[in-house]
Amino acid sequence: MLAVVGLGKAGLPLAAVIADSGFKVIGIDVDEKKCEMTNRGVNPIPEETGLDELIKKHAGKNLVATPRYEDAANCEVFIVIVPLFVDENHNPDFRVLENAFRNIGKVLKKGDLVVLETTVPPMTTEIIARKWLEEESRLKLGEFYLAYSPERIMTGYSISRLKEFPKVVGGADKESGMKVFEVYRDFVPNLHLVSSARVAEFIKLMEGCYRDVNVALANELFKVADELGIDFYEARQYANHEYCHIHMPSTGVGGHCIPLYPWFLIKEMEKKGKFGYVKLLRTARELNDEMVSYWAERIVMECMKISKPLNEIKICIKGITFREGVKELYHSRNLALVKLLTEKGLNVFVYDDLFTKEEIEKMGLKYLEPENADVVFDCFELTMSKV
Amino acid sequence: MLAVVGLGKAGLPLAAVIADSGFKVIGIDVDEKKCEMTNRGVNPIPEETGLDELIKKHAGKNLVATPRYEDAANCEVFIVIVPLFVDENHNPDFRVLENAFRNIGKVLKKGDLVVLETTVPPMTTEIIARKWLEEESRLKLGEFYLAYSPERIMTGYSISRLKEFPKVVGGADKESGMKVFEVYRDFVPNLHLVSSARVAEFIKLMEGCYRDVNVALANELFKVADELGIDFYEARQYANHEYCHIHMPSTGVGGHCIPLYPWFLIKEMEKKGKFGYVKLLRTARELNDEMVSYWAERIVMECMKISKPLNEIKICIKGITFREGVKELYHSRNLALVKLLTEKGLNVFVYDDLFTKEEIEKMGLKYLEPENADVVFDCFELTMSKV
Repeated sequence: MLAVVGLGKAGLPLAAVIADSGFKVIGIDVDEKKCEMTNRGVNPIPEETGLDELIKKHAGKNLVATPRYEDAANCEVFIVIVPLFVDENHNPDFRVLENAFRNIGKVLKKGDLVVLETTVPPMTTEIIARKWLEEESRLKLGEFYLAYSPERIMTGYSISRLKEFPKVVGGADKESGMKVFEVYRDFVPNLHLVSSARVAEFIKLMEGCYRDVNVALANELFKVADELGIDFYEARQYANHEYCHIHMPSTGVGGHCIPLYPWFLIKEMEKKGKFGYVKLLRTARELNDEMVSYWAERIVMECMKISKPLNEIKICIKGITFREGVKELYHSRNLALVKLLTEKGLNVFVYDDLFTKEEIEKMGLKYLEPENADVVFDCFELTMSKV
Repeated sequence: MLAVVGLGKAGLPLAAVIADSGFKVIGIDVDEKKCEMTNRGVNPIPEETGLDELIKKHAGKNLVATPRYEDAANCEVFIVIVPLFVDENHNPDFRVLENAFRNIGKVLKKGDLVVLETTVPPMTTEIIARKWLEEESRLKLGEFYLAYSPERIMTGYSISRLKEFPKVVGGADKESGMKVFEVYRDFVPNLHLVSSARVAEFIKLMEGCYRDVNVALANELFKVADELGIDFYEARQYANHEYCHIHMPSTGVGGHCIPLYPWFLIKEMEKKGKFGYVKLLRTARELNDEMVSYWAERIVMECMKISKPLNEIKICIKGITFREGVKELYHSRNLALVKLLTEKGLNVFVYDDLFTKEEIEKMGLKYLEPENADVVFDCFELTMSKV
């Protein structure tokens, strides 16, 4: 029997896939409502392709959700996939993670395996998670197994990702590596064992840094192209080939994932006094966050073409979620753009296909349909239009 | 009849491919010896796969080399593929390019097409090359055609690249675009017309910037991984997949190409006062160039493990060319590393498979076989060994 701690967008699909592979899974989540729903066979994440079916099929049978760790006392495997946030100084806030590990520690038995899937700063598994488990369980690593396996899901496609995409596992010690490989290969077809948990952690951070730096590069090249009167998208289309992968420009990078990961490495190196080791990651991170200033300036320049006082021009920002089609606002640069323009004293309205007028007004923002604005900026298309 | 100006590593394969497509080609190069060799059917670039055969087949027939522009007076198409260097402040040195264009201008006739293939700063074709041609020919753009098509060859594989890789053309005006597309498609199978010469120029620069920034990212992640006791190469192997393309770390980026291209954009933006538009390109460029300091420090640390005075330890730097297997030293970071270590007062020797003892000593460097050194640093493998 396996426990999956955290039934969020990454955890619930994983729990469902394991259940569908013929295992009994206890899903643990603080959200009692979500547990009830799941147990009734109702998928709390309907946008996840294929999840409805799996929840319906296994709810109350192979998949039982509960807010109580005691219900997982008979599990031999505990998979932790809870969120990790960062504070305003970009330092990781381990509270949710610590709570999960300490609660697992309380029910941990000899021979059990604990696997962390949340993306974390390097050494979190080997040093911090190990310490939490050892303190609560009074067992030593060696008496239990501890490993890391980064989730590599993509919102909306988590199930197919789990079934097709290469997945990596690494142990806090050699035995844990062998153990986690043996357990995971029963439900992950494309599985790779690496030499340690820290290597597995680093793999996920590398991927995030690649994305962040390459989005920053696309943003920088977009600005340069625009300055030179060159259509960035046309150039990108023919620049990209087998060896060249220029990303898409944007208002920056939002969400819980990519914008956090470079900071994990930046902070870790800064702790070691190695400030010069993370110059590129820091430049890229700041560049992406500062794209809102660039777009604010472009919007103001557009407004100046209209023969009305600047503060009377109705600006509509279209699209406020951090990514197109995903109703989430965490670290949304589009929302940051709205805030920045408002602070400049401009008359800013908001429109988003995924939000009602009421929802937008509840956030303290002004709602306006694009056709009633003077200037519309589409955050996903990066297009400006005068109405 | 076509003229190819510049019979270097990029120009000669292009001339040979055009000749092989059934056209008469006049190859122009200042190097009289190279012209003679080529006309005798002897390939001056033997490392270029498939070139021997084409030169043998077409020399003195479809392909005639000459140092004189007058010999190309009957050509209707002129392709310029000469080197562009940068000075010590990273500003482009247009002299070779200007000389080629002014000489073409002198023989240019109404209806002729001139195509630039050398990688250049944005607008070089539309503004600078146009001016040179108009001044010398007393013709106006419209009376002649002018276009840009970036060479995308790879040393050693230029011919297969020309036959398979997508190639881009763009005109200085609309008519030139249509004209160059019509001409090039007779010898380039995978051809794409873009909206302007400046877009075509930018495409090549984007590719170079992608490479430079991603090598910098690999170098940065290598340093971080090493600091954390993580094997970068193991992590890289599993981080890379369809959406992730972490490059290989190195001692930096050398050669005539990649290290120059980001500067073309940096300098262009700085001229416009847009210093903030090229932060990432500049950081990446400097990071790559500064890798020699990182490696020098690592080599010194390795030396400190040996119980001998530091200045008596024989250090052998293995591999001095800018890229493995290519006998070229331009902007070689490996040579920069040798210089840096020597300046520190260390006892530095050099070894390279591609150079004899005499060649190395002629450069003012000390030759030593790796097995006779105390510490060997392999610039291509990035490995350190004590003998």
